[in-house]
Formats: sequence, C-alpha cells, structure tokens
Amino acid sequence: MNIHRRISRFLFAVLMLPAFSSAQEANLGQYVKPLIGTAKMGHTFPGATVPFGAVQLSPDTDTIPYSVDGKYTGDVYRYCAGYQYDDPTIVGFSHTHFSGTGHSDLGDILVMPSQGKVLLNPGTADRPQDGYRSPYSHDNEVAETNYYKVRLDKHNILAELTTSTRVGMHRYTFPSNKQSHLVLDLTSGIYNYDGKNVWTVVRVLNDSTITGFRQTNGWARTRTVYFAIKTSKAFKNYGAKYFDSNVQYKGFWRKFNQQDNFPDLAAHNIKMHLDFDTEAGEQIMMKVALSPVSMKNALTNMELETPNWNFDQVVTKGKQAWEAELGKFKVDMLNKEDLINFYTSVYHANLMPTVYMDSNGEYKGLDQEIHKAEGFVNYTSFSLWDTFRAFHPWLNLVDPKRNADIVSSMMAHYDQSVLKMLPIWSHYANDNWCMSGYHSVSVIVDAIMKGVYQGDAEAALAACVQTAKARRYEGIGEYMDLGYVPDDVNGTSVSNTLEYAYDDWCIAQLAKKLGKADIEAEFSKRAENWKNLYDKRIGFMRPKDSKGNFREKFDVLETHGQGFIEGNTWNYSLYVPHQPKEMMEVMGGQKRFETYLDSLFTMHLPDKYFEHTEDITREGIIGNYVHGNEPSHHVAYLYNITKSPWKTQERVRQIIRNQYHNGAAGLGGNDDCGQMSAWYLFTSLGFYPVSPGSTAYWIGSPLVKSAEVKLSDGKVLKVLAKNQSEKNVYVQKVLWNGTEIKDFLINHEDIIKGGELSFLMGSKPKK
Amino acid sequence: MNIHRRISRFLFAVLMLPAFSSAQEANLGQYVKPLIGTAKMGHTFPGATVPFGAVQLSPDTDTIPYSVDGKYTGDVYRYCAGYQYDDPTIVGFSHTHFSGTGHSDLGDILVMPSQGKVLLNPGTADRPQDGYRSPYSHDNEVAETNYYKVRLDKHNILAELTTSTRVGMHRYTFPSNKQSHLVLDLTSGIYNYDGKNVWTVVRVLNDSTITGFRQTNGWARTRTVYFAIKTSKAFKNYGAKYFDSNVQYKGFWRKFNQQDNFPDLAAHNIKMHLDFDTEAGEQIMMKVALSPVSMKNALTNMELETPNWNFDQVVTKGKQAWEAELGKFKVDMLNKEDLINFYTSVYHANLMPTVYMDSNGEYKGLDQEIHKAEGFVNYTSFSLWDTFRAFHPWLNLVDPKRNADIVSSMMAHYDQSVLKMLPIWSHYANDNWCMSGYHSVSVIVDAIMKGVYQGDAEAALAACVQTAKARRYEGIGEYMDLGYVPDDVNGTSVSNTLEYAYDDWCIAQLAKKLGKADIEAEFSKRAENWKNLYDKRIGFMRPKDSKGNFREKFDVLETHGQGFIEGNTWNYSLYVPHQPKEMMEVMGGQKRFETYLDSLFTMHLPDKYFEHTEDITREGIIGNYVHGNEPSHHVAYLYNITKSPWKTQERVRQIIRNQYHNGAAGLGGNDDCGQMSAWYLFTSLGFYPVSPGSTAYWIGSPLVKSAEVKLSDGKVLKVLAKNQSEKNVYVQKVLWNGTEIKDFLINHEDIIKGGELSFLMGSKPKK
Repeated sequence: MNIHRRISRFLFAVLMLPAFSSAQEANLGQYVKPLIGTAKMGHTFPGATVPFGAVQLSPDTDTIPYSVDGKYTGDVYRYCAGYQYDDPTIVGFSHTHFSGTGHSDLGDILVMPSQGKVLLNPGTADRPQDGYRSPYSHDNEVAETNYYKVRLDKHNILAELTTSTRVGMHRYTFPSNKQSHLVLDLTSGIYNYDGKNVWTVVRVLNDSTITGFRQTNGWARTRTVYFAIKTSKAFKNYGAKYFDSNVQYKGFWRKFNQQDNFPDLAAHNIKMHLDFDTEAGEQIMMKVALSPVSMKNALTNMELETPNWNFDQVVTKGKQAWEAELGKFKVDMLNKEDLINFYTSVYHANLMPTVYMDSNGEYKGLDQEIHKAEGFVNYTSFSLWDTFRAFHPWLNLVDPKRNADIVSSMMAHYDQSVLKMLPIWSHYANDNWCMSGYHSVSVIVDAIMKGVYQGDAEAALAACVQTAKARRYEGIGEYMDLGYVPDDVNGTSVSNTLEYAYDDWCIAQLAKKLGKADIEAEFSKRAENWKNLYDKRIGFMRPKDSKGNFREKFDVLETHGQGFIEGNTWNYSLYVPHQPKEMMEVMGGQKRFETYLDSLFTMHLPDKYFEHTEDITREGIIGNYVHGNEPSHHVAYLYNITKSPWKTQERVRQIIRNQYHNGAAGLGGNDDCGQMSAWYLFTSLGFYPVSPGSTAYWIGSPLVKSAEVKLSDGKVLKVLAKNQSEKNVYVQKVLWNGTEIKDFLINHEDIIKGGELSFLMGSKPKK
Repeated sequence: MNIHRRISRFLFAVLMLPAFSSAQEANLGQYVKPLIGTAKMGHTFPGATVPFGAVQLSPDTDTIPYSVDGKYTGDVYRYCAGYQYDDPTIVGFSHTHFSGTGHSDLGDILVMPSQGKVLLNPGTADRPQDGYRSPYSHDNEVAETNYYKVRLDKHNILAELTTSTRVGMHRYTFPSNKQSHLVLDLTSGIYNYDGKNVWTVVRVLNDSTITGFRQTNGWARTRTVYFAIKTSKAFKNYGAKYFDSNVQYKGFWRKFNQQDNFPDLAAHNIKMHLDFDTEAGEQIMMKVALSPVSMKNALTNMELETPNWNFDQVVTKGKQAWEAELGKFKVDMLNKEDLINFYTSVYHANLMPTVYMDSNGEYKGLDQEIHKAEGFVNYTSFSLWDTFRAFHPWLNLVDPKRNADIVSSMMAHYDQSVLKMLPIWSHYANDNWCMSGYHSVSVIVDAIMKGVYQGDAEAALAACVQTAKARRYEGIGEYMDLGYVPDDVNGTSVSNTLEYAYDDWCIAQLAKKLGKADIEAEFSKRAENWKNLYDKRIGFMRPKDSKGNFREKFDVLETHGQGFIEGNTWNYSLYVPHQPKEMMEVMGGQKRFETYLDSLFTMHLPDKYFEHTEDITREGIIGNYVHGNEPSHHVAYLYNITKSPWKTQERVRQIIRNQYHNGAAGLGGNDDCGQMSAWYLFTSLGFYPVSPGSTAYWIGSPLVKSAEVKLSDGKVLKVLAKNQSEKNVYVQKVLWNGTEIKDFLINHEDIIKGGELSFLMGSKPKK
C-alpha cells in the first residue's frame, strides 16, 4: 500500500500524521524555508526579518556593478535580493532587501566581520582574499524565520542575524585575535555605481554608538536612510575612509585626521571599521536601527524594540510574530514538500510592502517632508503591477486590517504627490515609475468593494480618477483622446492600453457603488478600450499608431519591442480580466477561445524568444504560457468560461507542480513581492481573484487536502478536498456550506462570513 | 565764521543742525549707505535685509570659479559678498550673503528677470549677451536699509528688493513682452565648483508656488537650504533643466519630459525659468522664504511674515526695524561723513550672526537633527576669530539680550557637537573650522562676567573647558603638554599659542567667579603660555619646535609661513590682551615697549610683504600696523600702559580717519561680520574692550561730539566731548559722572548704570 492510497482511504486519520499535517504542530516555522527562491530567478532573500518588517537583514553574495547611463556592466537581474545561492562567497550583511523583485536599490549599511589587516574593499568572488568578503558553505548555513546563521570560513567567524521591525541584530562569534573588526561599508548598495551615494553622514557618539544617514540617488531618486548602531562591546579603535576621489570639497576639515577615531564624518562615500580584541569564542553583538526620518528616531526605535542585548529573545519574539501569521492557516496536504511550499508562500506573502514609519508614527513622505501616520501603519515598497493581481486580494481575505493600512498609505502618497498620482511602484518616499498601469486603483477599489478599506471612499475615488487622467504619464493623454495608447507615442502601448482599461473598469465599479453616474459612465466607456487594439485579422492585440494603423511588422511570439511589457501578445491578448466573456466573443467565441488557450499552454516556443526574457527561468514557461511574469496569472482560470472548466483544474495543478518547488531554485520566476506566492496560496485553496475590483473568486482545483483559514471577527474558512490526490486534480463537485456551486464562482461576501468550501476530487475531468 | 567755530561755540545749538546731527532726525536710515565697503576688500553686500535677518537679498555681480581641490581659478577673495562695486554687470539676486567675510559659501537661489529667448547660463561680464546677466549703472542703483533698486539695462527691467526676517521679496517692472521670464538658478552659489551642489529638489505646487531645497557641500560640509517661492502673477509656463552630465541616475523618470511644466524635479543641479506675458510697466513680484528645516516651514514663514503682496509695506516694516536699531544712538558729529560712517557702522554691526530658526523656533542643529529653540532666538554664522574682539562686547553693551541669545546658540551648538567643541567658525548647522583659537570661550565668559548671559554658568564653564582640551584640534594636545603649539606640528603655532593663552585666561576668570579653584589654577597657568614663545634674543614671538628650539630662519615682517595667521610677529607679538603689563615687562619695560609701538606705526613695510596679504588693501596699513586684519585691533590702545596715553588718542583718530570712509571703497579691509564696525563704534564713543572677559574698557579718544546711547532698562550712556574738533584729538581730562578718570579705564558695571562720560578735548597731548 503506497502512501497515496493510505491517504485517500483514511482521509481524516492522516490529519494526525506529522509529516503531512500542520494542524497539530506548534512550530509552523519549520515549514518555512527562506532559501526557497534564492537560486536563479526567485530573487528572494534568505536573511532575517519579521512580518512586513522595515529591516530585512540578509547576506549579500554580490552587488551589481551598474552604470549610471543605464548600461549594465554585470548581470543586472541576478542580485536584486543581494543573495544568489550558487555564489561561493558572502560580501556582508546588509539591512534592506526587496523580496522577489526584478530591480533593486537597497542593501543599506553593509556589515562584515573580519580579522587581521583591515580591508575596506569587498574583493571579488574568485579572489575573496583581496577584500573583506569570505567563502562559506551551505553546510554551515541556517535560514529560518527571523534567524539566519552562517560560518564565514575565511576567519572562521560565526555570524548570526535576527531582527525586530526596525532593528537588525547581529551576533558574531570570533576566534581569538587582537585585530578583530566589524567593517561598515556605507557605500555599498545592491546596485553600485559612481554617484549613487549622494551624501553620507556618520557620528560616533561614544565607543559603542554610531548614528548617521545615507542618501542615495537610485531607483528611488531621493532616498535617505537614517541609522543608529550600537555594539555590545566597546570598540577599542575605529577608522574611516572617504572614497570620494576629488569630488568632495574638503575645506578646513583638512585640519583633522579624519581617518582615525574621528567621530564627525561626512562625505559622498564612507567606509568604516570598528576594532576589537577578541578572545576565543567571544561574541560581539551589534544592533542597527533604521529610520526614514532622523538619527534620533532610529535611536528611539532601537531603545523601544531592542532595549537589551538578549539576541535569543529577539529571535524568539520575531519567530512568535511569524507563528501568528503562519498560524492563521491549518492545512493538510499531500506531502511535506507541499507543506513547505505552502508555509513558505505564506512567509513570502508576509514580507512586502514594509513598515515605513518610526515607532512614533513619523515617516518621510513623497514630498520629502516629515509626516505622522495618524490611525494607520504607513507602508512602502509597492510593486503594484505585480501585487494588485493576487497579493492585495489575498490580504483582503486573510489580513484585511493590513490592506486597509496599505490603502491609507497609498492615499497619503497621493496627498503628498505634486503630480497628483497614486503610487505606480513606490518605495522610500519616492515613486520609481517602474512597470505600467495605475494599479493602485485596482487595490483601492478592491479594498473598498470588499469592505476592507473604511476610509473616505469619495476621496479615494477622486484620487483614482485624477491618477487615471494623468495625461503626461505613459500615453494616458493620447489614451484619453484616442481610446488607446498609440504605438508611436509609447513603447508598451498595447499592454498599457489593456491595463488602463482594466483599471478604468475598477474605477467605474467604485463610481457605481458611490452613485457617481457620470464617472461610472466615463470609465465604463474607457474600460472597453481594449477592443481598440484587437486586430481581428490576426486574432491578437496589436500596436496601433496615432493615425489608427496597426503596426505592420509584428511578431506575436516576441516579448520585446512589440508594444508589451514582460509578455508577448499571445499572453497579453488575454488581458481583459474585467470583461472575459466579451473578450471571448471578440476572439471568436467559446470554441475558438478554448483552442487559443490550449495552444498557449502547449505550443512550442522557440528558444530565441526566451533569450532576452526578464525575470523568469526557462522552466517558468509552459508552452508559451509564462507564469514567471505576471500578465497571465489569471489565464489558467479562463477555461471556466469555456465549456471545459476541467482544463483550468488541470492547468492550475500543472502550474503548481511545475513552478513551485522546495529547493533554492524552487521558484520559476521572481516572487515579485509576494504575488507569485499569493497566486499559489489562492490556487492551493481552490479559488482565485481573476478580476480584483470584483468580489467574485473563480474556482480552480485545490491543492490542499483540507485547510482552515482564520478570517476576521473569529470567522473561519474551511476548505475540504475529498479524494484529493496527486492524480485527482479534477473537481467533480464543489459546495459552499453544502450548496453546490455550478458557475465556478464564489463571492468574497460569502466567504468572509465563514463556512466550508468542499470539493469532491476525481482523476477524470467532469465534462 | 566757519562751521567748526560755530560748533564749538554753540555746542548744544548745533544738535539741531540737520547735516551734522542725528539727534532730531526721524530718518536715521538716511545715514546708512549699504554700498560702503562694496568695492575692493570691504566685502559687504549692498542688498536688502533686516537686522540680523536670515535673508540677505542682494545683487551678485559675479561668483567665484573655484576648484574643489582648493586651487582657486579666479580671484577667490573678490566675491565673498557676491557684489563688487566696480563690476559692470549683475548676474542676479540671491538670498544669502555673509557681510565682510574673507571666504564664502552662500548666494542661494539666484533669481534674474529676463526677456526673449531663455538663457540659463549666466554669461560673462565681457559678454553679458551670452547669458542671463545684465549690464547696469550705479546711476540707476539705490541701496538703503531694507531696500535695493537697480535698472537692468539689457532688457530695461527695474528690479526692487526688500525682505522680512526669513523672506526675500522681489518686484520686477517689465517692458511689454510675450516672453518675460524669471530665471531661477538653483545651481548658483557665490563659490561655484563641480560637485558643490549635492542634491536639489523642486516641487511646483501650482502655477505660482514652488518649494524645494538645495543641499551643498562647501565651506559648510553638509548644508541644506529649504525654500518656498510664490509669484504675484501665475506663470503661463515653466521649464527646468538638469545640469548633471552623466552623474545622475535617471531610472524610469526618463518616462517623463522633465523640461517642460514638470512639477516634480530632483537632481544635483537644476535651473528653471518661469514664463510670463507682460504688458508695458507690468510689475511681477516674487516672495522667496527660507527655512533651515523644511519646505513646509518655509511656506509657514512666508505666510506669517509676508501674508500679502504689499511690497512697500514690507520695505517700511524693515526700515522701521532698522530705525529701532539706529535709534539707540543719538550722535552729534563733526560732519555728515562721520554721521554716515557711524550709522553705517551700526548697520554693519547689525547684520551677523543671522537668525537661524523658523517662525516656530525649529532649526537644524550641528548634529543634523531638527531642534526647537526654547526661550532664545537661535543664531548662526559666527566668525568668532573676528567678532570676539569688539563685536560681541559691543552687543553686551548695546544689545545684551541678543548676545545672550547668541551665547545660548553657542551652547546649543556645543550640546549637538560630537567633537564636544564650542563653535570656531560656524554657519548653517556646521562648523567650517576657519581661523584659529577657541574664541567662543571669550564671548561666553565676557557675556557672563558682564551679567549678560543668565543661563547655566557652570555648564558654560564646562563647555569652555572641554573645548580648550580638544587635543586633536590645531595643536591643542601639544599645547597642553608643552605649554605651546610646536612649529613642527602646526603652521600657525605662534598665533594659536597666543590666542589659546588669552582664551585660557578667560576661562580662569569664569572659574574664579564660580569658585572653581582647580580650574582657575589650571587655566591661569595656561594663560601664561604666551611667554613660552617670546624670544628675548630677538624681542619677538617666534615659532618653537617640539624639542624647544626656536625656528632658525624667521622673517619678522612676513605674514605667511612664519607661524602666524593673518599677521606678522611685529603685530602678533603684542597679542597678550589679558596681561599687557606683563607683556610690556617681558618686552623690556615701558620705554622699550613704547618705542616698539612707535616703530610699528611708523616703520616702512616693503611692498613685498604686502603682495600676498589677504583681506586688506594697501591703504589698510599704517606703517606696519594692519587694521584691515583683526589681531592688532587692541594695539593702538596699548599706549595707555606706557607713559604716553596721548599716543593712543592720536593713533585711534588716525586709524578712523585712515580706515573708514564714505565711498564704496570706504573700508580698508573686510568688515568681518561687524568687527571692523564695532571697533569704529567703540572708538568713536571713546573707549574699547581691550581684553573681553574683563569688564574694563580702555579710554581712547572719542570721535563724536556727543552721543546718547540707549542701554537696557531705560538707562542711557551719554558721551560728551567738549572742544571736539578735527584737530582736538587729545584728551585733556575725562570724567565719569563728574569724577575724573585717571587710569584711562572705565568699567562695564558703571556704564550700564547710565551716566555721562565727559571728555575735554584739546589740540595738544596732555603729557
């Protein structure tokens, strides 16, 4: 009797099996493997953090040499999270990391322990002896919730990391040496290039306290990270070096020797070393608190969050915070690998956006002024083009208070915006304008439609409308005039048009809810704009110029230079999530549409179309379906409107099996700030928000055998998949609280009241 | 009957003569000529400001091309105040200026009106047509208290300037043109060099409001000026250009056309233009408010200080503030030129330091944190090496509340200093470490000894002691160990030693007053350190190395490279203001000392010793006595301790007649933030604070015929010089409230009770 047969036979009994069930486990953190996604294109980081913490203290194995004119001199995408699992050396431990992005900016305040001669350059992976970096082995590496440990082989130093929301705590165990150091590289960032460091200030307040700030011009144009540092042992000496060539005016500061034990430092680029005597096995701890506002606030954050030197206590407190998030889910799955994928997805969907305010509520706004968040937690780092799809809807379901605060943060951003625009891709008091659409609109509307955001809905609508009329941004002006973004005006004219049309539909929904008939009419019309770029002749969305002519030379398989962003027209032609049935009609009706989907998932995509594709691995592609990028995340669910919903069930299980693994290379593409994980989580539970802004979820095929999800107000969503197995991916019947669902739709309003979504699974499609 | 005879005959009657007396004048501002000192080395600025105002809105006729490695590519000293009277063009009007310094940093937010094609570069003086600068004529220029007017000939635009404490107000009268502009050069500073502009942010809030900040790395290492700008007329268009070569990371901001009407700008170097249609004679006004803290605070400053567009009202209010300062003095003088010199000196002694806090009391501290001044007005720009001598003592006499606030500002600076040092030469949340000594000590001790500073005297003493023990600064460590600064350690070892010894004596005085016998003893001993560098063999102060050997090769006339700063040993050997009689003994007794002084004032100084002298004109020298630099400011008074006090009387009148004139070139050297003017004012009244920290004033020879000076608490100091005339410079008798003064000393304690200091003047020395 193999294990699968046992499972199907003793469905309830197996809930007790430790390897397969989390229900009775006190320690759900054991299923979280932060190393998942750290190889290849996952771009996750393995280090320590608490849920949505402002500090992500994590090892960097390299940083990206990057040219200011936009020419990359290295593999620019490789180091977005600072860490690549296959790298042989660790450069140091820095305090800020995005999770799963395809671009970076962070890696602030890099710390590295060393011994012997002070080396202030990182060295290279093939010659670590030339710099402060060290070889390491995964055998000596532990990555857990809020805890990371690694042995640095060069000097046999054990490094341990943990965090509170705004403080990174380091514990280094040194061998005996009269020349032990902590190198503080304040020039280092995950993207390094001349001129990135605009200004840096360091003040050594006493023999164990340092404050300062680091101001950069990068993906965020004007970004300042204030910090406060304390060491558990007084440093006996310290030194600093400016790396400013001749750009810095020195003035009468040249009166001082600023290199040795000089406490008042300021330059574009500063590196420091703190020197200690250490006995064998001596532990030196370091706390690094961050603030978006001031050094003073950073010190206060440290005092409030980590008042003492109890490293283990900080680990435990953070682990408890993780258990609280993980504990919202009791799942029973087919195997331990799935449990790990599930809880690691929960983990990855609890990293970003990050808290962006001090313990006193102060933060630096988009207007570069200091604000105080009144009545909400202010968040930053909104990768909205990714996260509007499933991540924010996921929060609306399982963590609505947090998403409400996120919407409040977006509204604050809007209020501070001189462009009068909601965030596009915002981080650290800036918009970096990456990717496309104005998908804050989707997030806000979804949160209001689902009753999650209780703030001023009319103000929110006004902000959405204003953003949707930002004529100067990415062809919006022409879009408003012509009904589409013209190819001659904008390089991603088709994807922009499609995404705007979806966002416009969201606005219409909110306007309708608020009784604003004129706005509803205006944006309902705009929501149809996707039709303007559908070329019936070829059966695909296609770029059109200002004069109304479709582009002649057009490659339906190519992603680059065809009018789309991170997707070809084969995928993007399906991007009408708000009007899927109309789309199906336009595309030739149910049958032809089903064939189109079949082709997408099965066709052969020649390698040449993959060569320059960003953010995904070759394995991230099923036929021509690209799961590693986001535009098709809803696509597998579209079979539900054909006569073959069983193909949705088949495909979503296929995608899960194909795209989500336990290894370091377990993610087929960038996790994209939790979007990939949120897709997994929804899909595992058996439903998905195809069109946020609508309260409908589309039924797929659950992966769990059973699940209990804590909702608000003590309500619980139970999911039960009878006869669940590796082969039984086909839904024979689905019931909500005992009533059969025939249209493969279930509503948010129903789910949040609590109840049981029960599937009967089978090995054959139910046609 | 010539006028002089009339005066001596009808002493009281002449008080009514308008040309010679201020007593009955409502408008004392008529005697203030801001253009005095704007030619050659005075380094004053002619523009508009209110007393100690944070904004000095003044024309710049050129800025200094300056190399970051310290090599000057132009005449670096020429443009410290931005304006040189002999220049043929005006570059623009900027908002911050030092008065009378020998170095600069300011010139923030340069505004220039223009018409026609937009030119964003300044052009050159010989080809103004290539840039935005304009020729002008002094015939069309008016400079008054808080009002400056000039016609800009290039486009026939009339420019008028006025200010409140934190706001500069411009009024431009344009000819008719569809292309009238206000150019906003945010890259310009009085010292310009690559890399000076660290970061600039601009936000165009609406068609008539702009906010932003400008962060520079210059004489002040980390300086940020926040601003808010409003125009009286909406601009129809605006544009901006970044001048960052390839240093700025552009990121996805390249999606925007940031040049035309784009409201969200940030770069290292930004220039803007605001465009208007103007009718003939149309006036466009502009308000520019500054803040050391935030754009928000700048806006608030504007709203509170200049809520409307009544330019004339702002002029009047500022003029009234000036009348209040000038009106503290009712003087009767020998001629109108003297009245102008007197009131212009009062004016120049009311410019710096400047208010450095917002209307809500907030300011950025030395620690780069935001602080709130509680119970005092926070000031910045302390040129202490200059101003400790007479300027601060002058405030202690005529404006004690202000000097108390200045001491409070110094103490706040100390509290914020990670080096634990009082200011040396501080401006805008920085110390620039220019010049020598730790003369905050002198200012603080003088203010406490004279009962002016009512704050915590023990804390003040502790700050003084700590500063005097800053071993790493300018040879203080060696000075403490050896009793002098060694020549091999420091390039200005002798002047440092002499100045430290004087400051140490100040500390001893305060310690004595507070009953701190150990500190008194320690610093009384240090106060004698001047003796360690007196070389009896040659009769001068002389550099000595660490081993105790005097330097072999030594030029007693040379200023440079001899161990002194801005003075040769002939002058500096007299720098023992606190122990003049001991100095006299060491130098060979009364007779030899008198001969030394006689020689100083009469000897021939070969031209070669003048060639490289800073900050003074050739005319600023009397023999080898240099009045244009400060170290000898007390010297003329030293005859009082010889048997020939009449030589003091002769020399001080000679210096006044030689050094202070009405013309643009009227000052023989840098006014040095009011020090030269304060010397004039004290000396005009007939006494001088030879050794601040002591409450004694040394009697000289008054220039006034009579004066009434308002002191605190309604007290009045009257000075009466009977038989005053151009020739009658010799004091025959001097009485305080009727009692004869025989030792040529008068005490501060006595003066502030009010009374009459009455001189009987004569044409012959009273020997």
